[in-house]
Parts: sequence; C-alpha cells; structure tokens
Amino acid sequence: MESETKRSSQSERAFDLARTIALSDGIFAFALTLLVLSISVPEISHNSSSSELWSALKERDSELISYLISFAVIGSFWVRHHRFCGTLKAVDGPFLAINLAYLATIAFIPYPTQLLGDFQNSAAFAFYGTAIAISVIVAFALSEHANRAGLLNAEPSAAELKDSRVDGISVISGFAVSIPLVLLTGDLWLGYLCWFIGPNLHLLLRFGSSGKH
Amino acid sequence: MESETKRSSQSERAFDLARTIALSDGIFAFALTLLVLSISVPEISHNSSSSELWSALKERDSELISYLISFAVIGSFWVRHHRFCGTLKAVDGPFLAINLAYLATIAFIPYPTQLLGDFQNSAAFAFYGTAIAISVIVAFALSEHANRAGLLNAEPSAAELKDSRVDGISVISGFAVSIPLVLLTGDLWLGYLCWFIGPNLHLLLRFGSSGKH
Amino acid sequence: MESETKRSSQSERAFDLARTIALSDGIFAFALTLLVLSISVPEISHNSSSSELWSALKERDSELISYLISFAVIGSFWVRHHRFCGTLKAVDGPFLAINLAYLATIAFIPYPTQLLGDFQNSAAFAFYGTAIAISVIVAFALSEHANRAGLLNAEPSAAELKDSRVDGISVISGFAVSIPLVLLTGDLWLGYLCWFIGPNLHLLLRFGSSGKH
Amino acid sequence: MESETKRSSQSERAFDLARTIALSDGIFAFALTLLVLSISVPEISHNSSSSELWSALKERDSELISYLISFAVIGSFWVRHHRFCGTLKAVDGPFLAINLAYLATIAFIPYPTQLLGDFQNSAAFAFYGTAIAISVIVAFALSEHANRAGLLNAEPSAAELKDSRVDGISVISGFAVSIPLVLLTGDLWLGYLCWFIGPNLHLLLRFGSSGKH
Repeated sequence: MESETKRSSQSERAFDLARTIALSDGIFAFALTLLVLSISVPEISHNSSSSELWSALKERDSELISYLISFAVIGSFWVRHHRFCGTLKAVDGPFLAINLAYLATIAFIPYPTQLLGDFQNSAAFAFYGTAIAISVIVAFALSEHANRAGLLNAEPSAAELKDSRVDGISVISGFAVSIPLVLLTGDLWLGYLCWFIGPNLHLLLRFGSSGKH
Repeated sequence: MESETKRSSQSERAFDLARTIALSDGIFAFALTLLVLSISVPEISHNSSSSELWSALKERDSELISYLISFAVIGSFWVRHHRFCGTLKAVDGPFLAINLAYLATIAFIPYPTQLLGDFQNSAAFAFYGTAIAISVIVAFALSEHANRAGLLNAEPSAAELKDSRVDGISVISGFAVSIPLVLLTGDLWLGYLCWFIGPNLHLLLRFGSSGKH
Repeated sequence: MESETKRSSQSERAFDLARTIALSDGIFAFALTLLVLSISVPEISHNSSSSELWSALKERDSELISYLISFAVIGSFWVRHHRFCGTLKAVDGPFLAINLAYLATIAFIPYPTQLLGDFQNSAAFAFYGTAIAISVIVAFALSEHANRAGLLNAEPSAAELKDSRVDGISVISGFAVSIPLVLLTGDLWLGYLCWFIGPNLHLLLRFGSSGKH
Repeated sequence: MESETKRSSQSERAFDLARTIALSDGIFAFALTLLVLSISVPEISHNSSSSELWSALKERDSELISYLISFAVIGSFWVRHHRFCGTLKAVDGPFLAINLAYLATIAFIPYPTQLLGDFQNSAAFAFYGTAIAISVIVAFALSEHANRAGLLNAEPSAAELKDSRVDGISVISGFAVSIPLVLLTGDLWLGYLCWFIGPNLHLLLRFGSSGKH
C-alpha cells in the first residue's frame, strides 16, 4: 500500500516536472521569437526605391544588434535552465513559484531589448542590465532552493558546487561591473564586453575541465 | 479481442490527454509571454537623453505592476490547472469543449492587463476582475465535469473535496469582494489585496495541512 | 537485419509523427493566443474617467464577438485535427507538405478575425468565410491522403467513413451556404448561425451514435 | 558503477536532445504563426462599405504572397531540421550554440517577410534572400558539426552524404543565383522561381530514389 502511494507520487512528480519543463520551454521559445518584433519596419512610403529602403535599414543596425544580443542572452539562459532541469528529480510548490518568477524575468526581456535598440543611451543599457541581473539572481535562488529542498537527482559533488558557484559569481559580476562602467564612460560596447566575459569565463573553465577527460 | 479494444482505447485516451495538456501548456506559456506587449515603449525621440528616458519609464510603473499581477494570476492558474490535470485519467468531448472555453478566458487576459496598465481607474479594474472571475468559474465547471464524468484517476476523498471547495470559494470570494470595494473606494490596491488574500487563504490551508505529514 | 531496419524505421516514423503533432499543437496554441491582439485598446487619454472607458469598451463588442467566434472555430479545428492525429500510425513527405499548408490556413485566421471585428460588413464576412472554407478543404485533402497512403492505424470501417464524409460535407455546406446568405441579406448573424449548424450537425450525429454504446 | 554512469549519461543525453527539439519546434511554430502579423489591416474607417474594404484588401496581395512564401520557406526548413534531428543520438555544447544561432535566423524571418510584403523592390528581395542564405549556411554548419562530433545515430552512408551534399548545394545555389538575378532584372518572380527550384531539385531527386524501393 505504502509502496503504491510512493510509486503514484513518483509518477506525479515526473508529471509535474515534465509540465514545468514544457511551460518553461514554451516561454523561452516564445520570448526568443517575440524579440523580432523589437526591430521596427521602416516607416517610409511603400513605393520607396531600393536605395531609400537600404538607407532606412542601415539606421536599424542598433536594433539588429540588440536583437542578436538578447537572442544570445536568452539562449544562454535556456542552456543553463535546461542543464539545471536535467539534474532535477522532482518539483515542489515553492519551486513552481520561484520558477514562475524566473520565467516572468525571461518573458520580460523583449521590453528592455526594444528600449536598448531604440535608445542607444546609458539609461536603456542600465535598465537592460538590471533586468538581466534580476533574472540571474532569481535563477540562483531557484537552484539554491532545489539543492536545499532535495529536489536534485544526486547530491552535487564539492567540485560541481564550486563550479556552479564560480559560474554564478562570474555571470553576476559581468552585469554588476557593466552598469557603472557604461554610466561612467557612456560606451555601450564596453558593457556588452562585460556581459560576454562573465558567462565565457565559466564556459572556458567548463570546456577546460571537460577537455581533461 | 475485447481487451485489445480496451487497450487501444486506453492508449487513445492517454494520447487525448497528452495533447490536451500540450495545447493548454502552449496557451498558458504564450499568454504569459504576450503580457510583455502590454508595456508600451516610450514614444519619445530615439535621440532622447538618458534622463528623458528614465522619466518616461517611470510613468510606466502602472504598466509594469499590471504585468507582474497578470503574470502572477496566469502563473497561479497554470499551477492549479497543472495540479488538476495530474489527477485526470482521460478526457471526453465535453471536457475538451469546457477546457477550450477555459483557455479562451486565459488567452484573453493580456487584453484586460493592457487596459489596467493604461487606465488606472475603477472601470479597468472591474473589467479585469470580471474577466478573471469568469475564468475561475469556467475552471470550476471543468473540475466539476471531470469529477462527475469519472475522468479522475481516483475518487477524491471527502477531505480533498472539502479542500478544493474551500479553495474555489476563497478565490471567487476574493474577486467578488474586490470589484464593489474598488468601485466604492476607488483604491485599486485594496482590490489587489483581495486578489492575493483569496488564493493565499487556500495556500495557507494547503501548506498548513501538508506540513502535518 | 531486416527486422532491425523495420524497427528503426518504425521508431523514425513515431518520431516524425510526434514532432508533426508538436508543431501542429504549437501553431494551434499560438494562433488561439494571437487572437487577443485583434481586440483594440481604446485610443483615449490614459486619464479618461471610468465612464469614458466603459463607453469606449462597449464599442468593441464586435471585436469581442469575433474573438470568441474565432476561438471556437480554431478550437473545434484543433479537436478535429487532434482526433485525426490519434488515428495515424505514420507520416510521409506529402503528408508533411499538406499538413503545413493546413497549418498556414490556421495561422492565417487571426487576420480575417481582425477584419471581421473591425469591419462588420459582408465583405469582411465573405473574406473570413472563404479563409475558413479553404482550411476545411485542405483538412479534407489531408485526411484523404492519409487514408489512401495507408498512414492510418486501422482501416476505417464503412460506418466511420460515412460519419467522416457526412461531417465534412455538413461543415463545408455551412460555410458554402453562409457566404451568399450574408451577401444577400447583409445580416452577419444568419451567417454565424450557418457556421454553428454545420459542425453541430456532425456533433449531434456523433453524440447520438456514441450514446448508443 | 561505470555502466551506471553510462546509463545515466545516456538518459541525460536523451533529455538534452528532447528539450533541444522541443525548443526548436516551439520557435518554428511561433515564427510561422507570427508571420500573419506582417499582413497589415486596412487603415480605413470601420464604417467603410464592403466595396471599399475589398479594394483595400486587393492592395495587400503582395503581403499575402510574402506570407505564403515565408510559410513555405520556414515550413520546408522545419521539415529538414526535423529529418536531421531524427538522425541525432545526442547533443553537445557547441551543437546547442550553433542550433541557437540557427534558431535566431529562423525567428528573424518574420522581419524580412514584412519588408518584402511592404516594399516590393529589389532591396527588400536581396535582404530577404540574404537572411535565408545565412540560415541555410548555419544549418549546414550544424549538420557538419553533428557529423564530425559523432552525434549521429549511424554513420551516414556514402550515398546519403552525397544526397545531403547535393541537396545543400542546390538550396544555396537557388538563393545565390536569385539575388543578382533580381537586382539585374528587377523581376521578383524570377527570384521566387529560383527559390522553388533549389529545394525542388533535391525533393525530385529524393522522391526519385525513394520511388525505387
């Protein structure tokens, strides 16, 4: 009787986990696809010549850049969430709540993306950076909760914990450093560089260690 | 021969259930992601200074609040639908029809969200509250139908039935009380408080009882 | 060796079928959710009074009606596609092509929905009705192809074939009759009535026969 | 112990693959559905007569054509990606990164679609063609990586490799030829013809060879 309850609650957990992942994947996929709406169609006459259209498109370079950056940011968040979900064996109520809060920060990204594309100033950059930083912090809370509430498939080893901690710190540092840097210098590219270095630090470390096997 | 028919109709039911859940998850995910379009991009010159952009963004605080509220509302509805679907063993024709009506109320939420963000008046609040209340009522009809038509995995116990009834009543009460309250006082925050107390009542009861195990 | 090839091609077919269904469900879910964008937000000052907002919303009744009609139409198409996919054992190249053409007609529906909501005239009705009629015809071609190419799990019985033929004819007739009727009388509700009678004819027959078991 | 690690890493790989496919299907489905937003609603009075609406709709023929072309393009890319994923047994880090870059090119397509529908000139055509050509090249890089990194279920045979190479070259040639052709002649239909011949060459070859079994 007891084992039946256990089995049934196990399949329930698997169902919960599967649907949570399905919802998350849906939101990631949709947020990625909505980004394209942040690139504005030139508001010129439909009978414009080819050269008029080219010059109007050239003015949209900053929108295209912010599209690509946001695609890379959300995409890399998806890779992390995806790796993280692969280590889960179950979800609980607080996990669902924190995961929804995390998805709210992901689904929000098309908005700062549009701001960054339209207004290439440090306020837009700071707004974008803050939005992403909040997302990273909520993701960190999610993984901390999963670890403490025993939702993981296997107790992470000391090395894995260190890896994940170094990773989290390097990503957050990238964003923390980028905002004052851009506010001071006014150069957005220095900020984008910080965003790339943060996660790349971790990737370099990960590829380095996986290369030793 | 007969058992084969039964087996085939069982796998058919599992397929029906799986696709119904996939469609529902899809609509929940997209409705959540579409919410971001309700936050309007400042219609100021693209060469505006950082301080001009900040002040334009500050005026959008009500849009951000209605984004967060709707994310929480749809998210909590998803958690409920998700728990509910975990108790199903099959779906039938009327279930599909009621579920579609329910999904129509979910997919509609981005519209009242935009109204609430744009017009912070009691008409917008009442419209939003009514839309959500209709959604809750259709969800109730769905669960009633599933129970009566024998679509549940297991007969719910008396305690579970009471739990679910108390839950439904507290959620509906929250919305029922909030609308006249806001129409009388004109204070939206009193209304939001009602919306939080309704589902929280249920959560507090649920956490309380699950804590006893 | 041969049986291995067969097994591998069977799992390949199952994969093809699963992904085809996943893409179809995604498009149905997204088309359903995009419908809400066809309801326009009142273009009045954000400081408008509650009564001004109410009267602006009342003018949107036709947009709300076309939202609900399209949700019912796409939803009922999903139920049909869903039942149909449950009878498939495999997909082939032409099936994928016809299914994509079908999905193009489904993904198109938000456009005529917006036209119908904005312009309550017989041209908008005829455009909408024609779009839906094309969708029904492509769905018919899909099911015909699946039957002829041996993609179905089981040879449909004579009764099932008759049922499905009666169903298809009644749906198409509803649309075929509605367009000249509205063009002549100018009364959209007569047309909506035709759309409901078509599929309901079939549902009544189906429920009638399933009630006999 | 070792075999357990292997088993666990196998199920991990299956999970990775399943989620990668789910994300990809989601993005394909949403990109397909977002295309409809590129067809603009006539900006005429809501009380316009039926004949005024018809003439306004007739001006949108080029938007409808670019909708259908993009649906066919993304749809055929989905069929290719889908066939390709069916041959995978695992994914690795670089695969995820290249696949995300590929999905970025897919999610981008609604933008050139809108340009092509709005501005029927050779600049819009060249922009569209270039976007698609980049997509095809990234898809080629993805399949090359999968082959070299041993991510495929089975070593492709010499015939399959030749088939896939002929296919890739014919698709890329279609786009490569179409752009200068349209820039020189200014006739978009010649360009569309090239796009159809490219993939059709491959389909004709494939159907031809599959017909021999």
